[in-house]
Formats: sequence, structure tokens, C-alpha cells
Amino acid sequence: MKRYTIGLDYGTLSVRAVLLDLQTGEEKAECVFEYPHGVLDSELPCGVRLPQDWALQVPQDYLQGLTAVVRGVLEQSGVPKEEVAGIGVDFTACTILPTDAEGTPLCEKAEFERTPNAYCKLWKHHSAQSCADRIDAVARQRGEPWLPLYGGKVSSEWMLPKILQTVEESPEVYRAAAFILEAGDWIVWKLTGVQKRSGCGAGYKAFYRDGTGYPEREFFRALHPMLEDVVQTKLNAPVIPVGSCAGTLTDEMAEQLGLCAGIPVAAAVVDAHASVPASGIYEPGSMLIIMGTSSCHMLLSEEERGIPGVCGIVKDGIIPGLFAYEAGQTCVGDSFSWFVHNGVPAAYEEEAKQRGISIHRLLREKASNLLPGESGLVALDWFNGARSPWMDSALSGTIVGLTIATRPEEIYRALLESTAFGTRRIIDQFVNSGAPVQKLCAAGGIPMKDPLIMQIYADVCGREITVAGSGQSGAFGSAIYAAAAAGFGSVAGLAARLGRLSGTVYRPIPENVRRYEALYKEYCALSDFLARGSGIMHRLREGKSST
Amino acid sequence: MKRYTIGLDYGTLSVRAVLLDLQTGEEKAECVFEYPHGVLDSELPCGVRLPQDWALQVPQDYLQGLTAVVRGVLEQSGVPKEEVAGIGVDFTACTILPTDAEGTPLCEKAEFERTPNAYCKLWKHHSAQSCADRIDAVARQRGEPWLPLYGGKVSSEWMLPKILQTVEESPEVYRAAAFILEAGDWIVWKLTGVQKRSGCGAGYKAFYRDGTGYPEREFFRALHPMLEDVVQTKLNAPVIPVGSCAGTLTDEMAEQLGLCAGIPVAAAVVDAHASVPASGIYEPGSMLIIMGTSSCHMLLSEEERGIPGVCGIVKDGIIPGLFAYEAGQTCVGDSFSWFVHNGVPAAYEEEAKQRGISIHRLLREKASNLLPGESGLVALDWFNGARSPWMDSALSGTIVGLTIATRPEEIYRALLESTAFGTRRIIDQFVNSGAPVQKLCAAGGIPMKDPLIMQIYADVCGREITVAGSGQSGAFGSAIYAAAAAGFGSVAGLAARLGRLSGTVYRPIPENVRRYEALYKEYCALSDFLARGSGIMHRLREGKSST
Repeated sequence: MKRYTIGLDYGTLSVRAVLLDLQTGEEKAECVFEYPHGVLDSELPCGVRLPQDWALQVPQDYLQGLTAVVRGVLEQSGVPKEEVAGIGVDFTACTILPTDAEGTPLCEKAEFERTPNAYCKLWKHHSAQSCADRIDAVARQRGEPWLPLYGGKVSSEWMLPKILQTVEESPEVYRAAAFILEAGDWIVWKLTGVQKRSGCGAGYKAFYRDGTGYPEREFFRALHPMLEDVVQTKLNAPVIPVGSCAGTLTDEMAEQLGLCAGIPVAAAVVDAHASVPASGIYEPGSMLIIMGTSSCHMLLSEEERGIPGVCGIVKDGIIPGLFAYEAGQTCVGDSFSWFVHNGVPAAYEEEAKQRGISIHRLLREKASNLLPGESGLVALDWFNGARSPWMDSALSGTIVGLTIATRPEEIYRALLESTAFGTRRIIDQFVNSGAPVQKLCAAGGIPMKDPLIMQIYADVCGREITVAGSGQSGAFGSAIYAAAAAGFGSVAGLAARLGRLSGTVYRPIPENVRRYEALYKEYCALSDFLARGSGIMHRLREGKSST
Repeated sequence: MKRYTIGLDYGTLSVRAVLLDLQTGEEKAECVFEYPHGVLDSELPCGVRLPQDWALQVPQDYLQGLTAVVRGVLEQSGVPKEEVAGIGVDFTACTILPTDAEGTPLCEKAEFERTPNAYCKLWKHHSAQSCADRIDAVARQRGEPWLPLYGGKVSSEWMLPKILQTVEESPEVYRAAAFILEAGDWIVWKLTGVQKRSGCGAGYKAFYRDGTGYPEREFFRALHPMLEDVVQTKLNAPVIPVGSCAGTLTDEMAEQLGLCAGIPVAAAVVDAHASVPASGIYEPGSMLIIMGTSSCHMLLSEEERGIPGVCGIVKDGIIPGLFAYEAGQTCVGDSFSWFVHNGVPAAYEEEAKQRGISIHRLLREKASNLLPGESGLVALDWFNGARSPWMDSALSGTIVGLTIATRPEEIYRALLESTAFGTRRIIDQFVNSGAPVQKLCAAGGIPMKDPLIMQIYADVCGREITVAGSGQSGAFGSAIYAAAAAGFGSVAGLAARLGRLSGTVYRPIPENVRRYEALYKEYCALSDFLARGSGIMHRLREGKSST
């Protein structure tokens, strides 16, 4: 009998499933479902308006998608349900929701339907910045031992700022919540009927440390009296490592999904992390970059070090047996899209239309004729604030070197380059802090389809970059964790056997490396001044919110 | 008998004449002629290619325009030629050409037809930067006493760098030239048959000082052996003050233009300066800003001070009896046009088209709904390099504060604001150096048609700004100098009687003044870092030319 696992990949706008052949590594079927409500960033479904920087989701969308994509891959492939040996789930993180004791989301209850804090807060919900600042200050003042392991700075995207915001703005929601948990853990709970929390989500997003657990009670009390017992109440569930079995599929869910009851369900993982085993990466010194609207950098290591501005390091966080660092850039493809929608003149749109190509493609064509440095431009990639190594959501995008001869494709290329400089800055941060980077791989939407940007990354970093082999490395990776949970081997062993890189390798061109070395210095000088020295960006941001 | 004068205003792309009624101050007729060859910035008429940063013109265009516009205003008005009492000429500066002893431009001779250095170098010819740097270094080293009176830095736009470039690149042109002179002086020579040089052009653009004349022979020798006797040869003609009579119209020119021979022709003036008397400005402490593609700031004063970054101060330079400072911004309307052509998406073009309005107007409408600081953007206005107070052509435009929510009208407004900050910076430079600015007026294309930008200037500067009364203040002013040369009164007296401001006054709005005060501080901090501290822009510029 052939054996398969199903990997589920919950992204920002859709959920995707793949059915993985555990013998051959073939993706037998793939199915995608877009969330009906998408991202709520201007109003709730009932019409309640949301302030700036909110990003919520409707949890029913996840369940609707779950049934659709699992049934989808089964139907497409014709694989009998008896051959499906397990399920794995990855999810955007930190995406959290408050539920009652049975796991019903509070936003589904009539009394909280109009309360934004009762909904799922998506990873990119950014309105908890002042909470993050406060947590940061308290942790620093108390000398919390975990702080250096999270880059020395608390991000507004993480779990605790999102919870503190609820405590302060909607204490009735906080009080009514039996649990507050990652949406990935919630899906696993729905599948198995028992609540377990993944060490991946807890480790990277909630300051949970192997051995010592969550931060201590005194820290939470110092933050807010209502938070004192948060660990013993809202977070109270066993934390289990990735690749382990969280439980088995309930009868009810088996019925609903068209699967056999009792098959293992793996602990949830953070979406980006699932791509690591999927890309056959399991050795220390290997870095995988997931490049999409934003980017995530994961580095495997044998040692644990606190590295300033690196979002987290977690033991067994991605591959059991190794430490794994996570760093990131908040704006990659997002700034290219912004430019295409806001900065490209009608003549270019006309040209693209006449030639039947996309504007991205037209700009890429024109930009690929430019040499590094030819435009005289250098840009900063902080159009969504900046994550590593700055950890500062008040930073903003910048373009220097404009003249009246500057053409749109020059700005476009400068934006591509700025994200490459941002990645180089992160790699330098690792290397200079004693965490070697020996091998560089890339996955996600961009590496599969944009040779120009990949060559720029190779030239800017002065390193070979290998592209991942699966277009769906998230779901593929979840299927590998499912296989580990179902007892088919270790995550590392399965990654070595099933994971894959494509044959595409981008190699640095020496002349470009030399030119970019000079431009990268300018990027760093400008970064240091604008992110650290001057305070200009913070004041601009404050001025903006005070109008 | 009624009496009139004709004022000629030679701009970058066209020449314009007005016929001024000396009794009433009425502009009786107006006529414009576009130069057939425009600006030569990519090739000569014979097809010889020009390198980057060249900007040449064809002197025959000026003569063709001369006849066309003088005959034009006579025909339009029906004024008999006997009533025309004089002619005045203003011209872009420094715009220079080499001629033979009779005044024939060398570029009209077969042997020099293919030699770029034999043509008219337009004011914005920027390829003599390395020459300017050298002159600057030599002057600084020798402690030349005139250097502080030119802002402490030599501009590549001035006469000597343009001549040194010819000496170095085309010594045969330099040798063959009997004279090298301002195009404005050349037109006056053509009209009168005698060569006189205006103290305005010589003072602002060629280091000529009242009392001591041009720099001394040793300075020129130190620059280049061939330049040792440049003053005694190529520049050898009497220098006369503005408002004085340079000579009288020759029979031949009278015939050609349809005027009476023997009428006085005034000494040429720099184009922007002619607007000062035209706007009724003749008192110390008054500043006039000419706002167009670039801007020029002229301030009348009773004292002579060297002010860093102020392009020049000349006794009797604009109004006989007073000192006049000149400062400037190289890029004002130019950056707005650049943005409209390169940075506005198709949807906006479509909207403008459907509503039957220009894109500038659409952007102004949308931008006028924004509060100061609301966009979180701050820009530097150096899209053509920077003149006052930086005197540095390697500087470039910059935008800070971009996010993926930034809209085109926000960038447009940031560009408008950046030019206002640039003007504020210049005013501060004067005031902080002890040259008071009591009254602020504006002339040129922008103040007549753009209330949004004028309000921004008033708010940023925290001062009332009065708009000039004539749409053709250049030609109007030349007609006033003509009247002075023809004996109808002093320039100041004629300015008081005939010059005029419109009734339009922009008054600062206190709330906006407060907000802009904060943004202006950011503009200054960013300027100081990018223009002085970091060297980033110079290196970007060098990188650009080395590709």
C-alpha cells in the first residue's frame, strides 16, 4: 500500500493543501482556498470600523478552507483515504485568537461580534506597538534573561503585545477568554479534540524557553495586574516539539474531511519554517530565505547565541536536534507592488498592455539593462517598518539620488536592490555575531519567477543562492512534519530524503559584487543615520499620527 | 507724443518682447519667439553627439528672435516707431559664446561647426564641474579676496569654468576667439555696433568687482598658462553699470527691426534681475524670488557681506545705489514636471483626462486636502544638484518616509514642500548672516498660477508673500532699464513709478507654520547629513559616472 500525508499551509489570504507521496516525494495533488473575508483592515463584517494598523481575520474562514482543500486533494488525486497516514499544519504567526473552554472563538459569540479584540489578530496586525514598547521597557528594566534571545527587542507582531492590547482595550474579552492561542494550534485542537501548543509558535512568538517555560509570574504582574496568571490560565496547555504527534483525528473531523479517524496530527509549525525541511535543509550553517511580500530568514545552528535584532532562536524550533534562528524583512514584494500601483506612468502601462506583458515584467526587462550603481540611486527597504536587525516599526522607505533624469525602472531596480541590501545586512549580523552562514537557499513566490532579483541577491550577498524545488514548500514541509509525527522517520531524515532544491543556482558575478560592495556601504551609512542617529523617521511618524 | 520702450527677455527656450507705455506702465503689446534649435543637449545641428551634462545654443536663434519679437510688438500695437525711445535686454546667465573681432560667433565658421566648445554654452551647461572645482581650489589656496563674496564656492555655471573647459578641451577655439562674452552683451553689441559689458553679468558671473575689476593676472596664470592674459584679450571691453546706455541703435539694425536709428540701448542685465524693478522693488531688505523650473532669490541691501553659499553680491548689480545679493535653487518646477512625467500612475492620468484637467491640477487638488506632516514624508529638492547654500552639483533628490500606503499626491506635495524648505533655508542663511529680509515677493510662472504652493511657501517661511503684478516681469524690467538708459529717470525711481505687485498676498496660517517648523527641522537635519556629513551623494554620483 502506498502512503501519503497531507500538509496544510495557512497563509495570509488563503490555505493550501498538498498530498505528499512518502515514497517518491511527489506532490500528488494540490488545492487552494481563498478566505472569504480575507484580511479585515478597515472594518469588521458587521460594519464596525477599525483604526489604522489593525489586521484581523475570521476563524470560520480557516475551517471552511480546511474541509475544502483536504477534500480537494483527495478528489483530485483519487488516493483512497486509507492511504493517508497523517496531517500537518503550518500557519502564519503570530496569529492569535481568544476562545472559550471548548475552543469556540469569542468573535463568534453575539456579545463580542462587534468587538475587534475578540477576532483573530493576524501576524501583521501592527496596532499593539505601544504595548510592545512597554513590554520591552519592563523586560529591559528587569533584565529578563530571555530578552537577548529575541534580538533584544520585543516586536509588536508577537503574542504578548497582542494580548496586552486586549487587556487594555477590551478587558471583558480577556476575562471571557478561557484560552488565547496561535491559530495554528487552534486548528490542531479542532482536528484532534485536545489542546496542545507547538514549541515552534511558543518559542518564537511567546518567549517560551525549553527548560524554563514562559517568563515568570513577576514579569507579567509588572506588566499589568490582570496578566499575572496569564500562563496558568489563558496559555495553559502542554507545549510539544515540532515533528511530534499532537493527537489523532477525531471521528467528527474525519467524517467532515473524508479521512480515516485516528490518524496522527502533527504539532503546528510557523508557516515559513515548514519550508526548511521541504527544501532539504537540515544541517547547521544552512540559511533559507522565504521571499514574498515580506521575507523570513531561518538559520540552523549548533549553538545558542543572542543576536541583536534577530527575532528569535529556539531549540528544536525547526529541525529537532538543532537551534534555529529566525530573522526577517517586513517589506519585500510589498514595495515592488506599491511601486507598480503608485509610481509607474501611463506610458509604461500602455507599453506593457500593447506587448501583452505585466508591468512587473516590463520593469524587470528595462531594469535588467542597468548596471549596478548606474542609476546613482540607493533606497532603504523599510516601507512597512523594519524587522531585523532594527526591530522598529516606525522606520520608513527612503530613496536617495533622484534627479530629473531618473526613470521609473531605475527606481524599481533600486527597490529590488534595497531588499537585497536588507538581506545582506541580516547575513552580516549573523556572521559578525559568530553564527556562520555557509549555504544560502531561497523559497517562496519570488525566487521561482524572478531571475533578475535573484541575481541581484547573489551579487549583493556575494554568495551562491539555490532555489527551493517545490513551489509549495510550506504545505510540502507540513506534510513532512506529518510524516515524522506518523512515525516515518525524523524530520531531518525525512528532509534529507524527501526535501528538494531545484537545479537553479544563482552565482555572484565578480564585477557586480565589487560594485554592490560600494553601494552596500552607502545603504549601511544611510541606515545607521536614519534608524539610529537622527530620530528623523520617528518624528515623521509621530507628526503623521498627530495630524 | 507718447513714449515707449521695448524690453527683451531672452529665456532658456524663447525670447519675449514687451512694449511698455512709460506714462501709464501699461504693457501695450507682447510677443514671443521660440528658438528653432532650443537647447542642444544630445547633439549639435550637424549631428555631432554631445556628452552628458552639456547644454548649448545656436546664436542665430537669438537674432532671428530679435527681429521677430520687435517687429511683432510694433505691428500688434500699431505704435509708430518714432514713439519708441529705447531698448533694454535681459538674458539667461551665465550664457557665453566665443566670437571673432567683428562679433561673428565661432560656431558659424565652417572650421568650428563640429566643435561643441565653439557654441553658446547655456547657463545650465553643467559639464565644467571639474574646472569649477579646480578654480575653487586655486582661489581658496591663494586666498582670493573675491571668493567669500561669491558664497565661498565657484559654480560650474559661471563664466570662468566654461572658459577653462574650452581652453582644455578645444584650445584652438580659445585661440581663435577674439572675445568671449555673455550672450546678453553680444546682443547689445549687435544692436549698437560697440562692445560694452554689463556690470551685472560681469559682477555676478565673472568675479568682476567694482573698483578692482577682474581677478589678477597671477590668479589666471595659476589656473592655466593660456589664461594668463584672458582679461586683457578675451574679456577686453568696458564694463558699464545697469541702467546706463551702452550705445545707440545702428542704422542697419534699425532697418532690420523697423525702429529709428540712434535710440539708446541699455546695458544688458541677468534675466532674473530684470524682474526686481518690474515688481516695484527698490528698497533694502526686499527680496524677490523668481519661481519657475528653477528659482532665483534677489535681496537688496545697503551693506556688502560675504555670505556662505550665496552666489554673489554686486554693487549696483540690480538697482544702482544698492548692493544686490543673488541666491538660488536649481530645481523647483523641474522636479514637479519630472514627477508628473515619471511618477504618476495611469489611473490618475485617466481621472485627469475624464475631468478635462491637467495632471498638475489633479495632483494639486488632491494634495491640497492634506495637512502639513500628514503624509509623514520629507523630501530634499536637489533633483538638479543644489545651489544655495550648498553650491554642489553632485547633490541629489531624496524622499524619506515612504510606506506602502503612500499615495502619489503625498509625494507631489512633499516635492512642493521641499522647494519651500529650500527657500526657507536660503532666507535663514541671509538673516543669520546679518542681511535682514523684511519683505518677500514672488514672480515667475509658478506664483501666478499655483495658490497651493504659494500658501505652502508662506507657511513654511512664516512670512507674507506678495505676487508680482506682471506676468512678463523679465521683459517688463528690461523696458524699465531701457527707460533709465534713455534718460527718463533712475532705475529706482522708475521701479517705484512703473513697477507693480499684484493684489495677491499669501499670509501664513499659524497652525501650518507650527507644523512646518517641525518638518523644516527634519529637512535641515537630513540636508546637513547628506550634503555635508556623509558624502553619500558624492559617492553615488561618482559611482554613476564610473559605470
